[in-house]
Amino acid sequence: MLEPRRIKHCRSCGSLIAYLVPSDDNRERAVCGDCGTVHYENPLNVVGTVPAWQDQVLLCKRNIEPRYGMWTLPAGFMELGETLEAGALRETDEEAGARVELQGLFTLLNVVRVGQVHFFYRAQLTDINFNPGPETIEARLFREDEVPWEQLAFRTVRETLHRYFEDRRRGRFELHFADIV
Amino acid sequence: MLEPRRIKHCRSCGSLIAYLVPSDDNRERAVCGDCGTVHYENPLNVVGTVPAWQDQVLLCKRNIEPRYGMWTLPAGFMELGETLEAGALRETDEEAGARVELQGLFTLLNVVRVGQVHFFYRAQLTDINFNPGPETIEARLFREDEVPWEQLAFRTVRETLHRYFEDRRRGRFELHFADIV
Repeated sequence: MLEPRRIKHCRSCGSLIAYLVPSDDNRERAVCGDCGTVHYENPLNVVGTVPAWQDQVLLCKRNIEPRYGMWTLPAGFMELGETLEAGALRETDEEAGARVELQGLFTLLNVVRVGQVHFFYRAQLTDINFNPGPETIEARLFREDEVPWEQLAFRTVRETLHRYFEDRRRGRFELHFADIV
Repeated sequence: MLEPRRIKHCRSCGSLIAYLVPSDDNRERAVCGDCGTVHYENPLNVVGTVPAWQDQVLLCKRNIEPRYGMWTLPAGFMELGETLEAGALRETDEEAGARVELQGLFTLLNVVRVGQVHFFYRAQLTDINFNPGPETIEARLFREDEVPWEQLAFRTVRETLHRYFEDRRRGRFELHFADIV
């Protein structure tokens, strides 16, 4: 979430932070009043998949906040040490306990309000034995007419599922770009 | 740059950090020994453009470290409050003082070693009056046979320029994905 001015102390020396525009910069940064370290705050990437099996997609019922009990595609924050694709695979394993083969980037969504960029990859399930982790209450397959549209956890998930079923109907998948405002 | 264990103090309360695996997590995080705040470290996005004018592209000679004096496409860290596209335009303005119209994402490059993802957009220069900012010594146009290949600042810039001229020769631009290892 976008939480400006959330840095109170310097991570290098522990002294108090002041928000000011450094002389060689053009925007406000968290600057240590003691050692001068500048603490940058930047957008985060969220990576996930659209795991497909025949005419169905796999959704996960969230066992964590935010949006406890609502449905989502498997997705989460990209970690250091991995590619976008590796992160999408990891989240699919962690949240759904599902094995997939990636089929390419499908949606790339700016979510400026919360300082995030979301990446969803199309993915082919290689079996339908799901073993969801602690973040998920239940993982199950949905046909388009079964998707719980009113109980989806995030707008990027709704956008991605809409585009997925649209593309599926016309028989051609493309990469979609959108801004979630 | 990827600098594990670089957090020494809690940004909330200033107390000392310990690196450990939280009970609800599966990897080491910087956790405050006093207030318990968990400090996540995630990859950063770098956004830029390939500004084109006829058969030439615009490069900038760096006036800052790292790679002082070497040539780069205009690019920099995506900021909070902007989309990928807005960031690419901002960097093009700040580093090259150039006005462009974006023509779509061209390269998407994982740079795992330094915890970054790089995004370069094709862009059409609307004029050739450049007014580079303080981060740039000089901004000028290069034909393919003039590009200073041995003096390029970053491998993602080299990769993007190679793909750009290749696609230009065959008359069709595509979106390219690659991992820089």
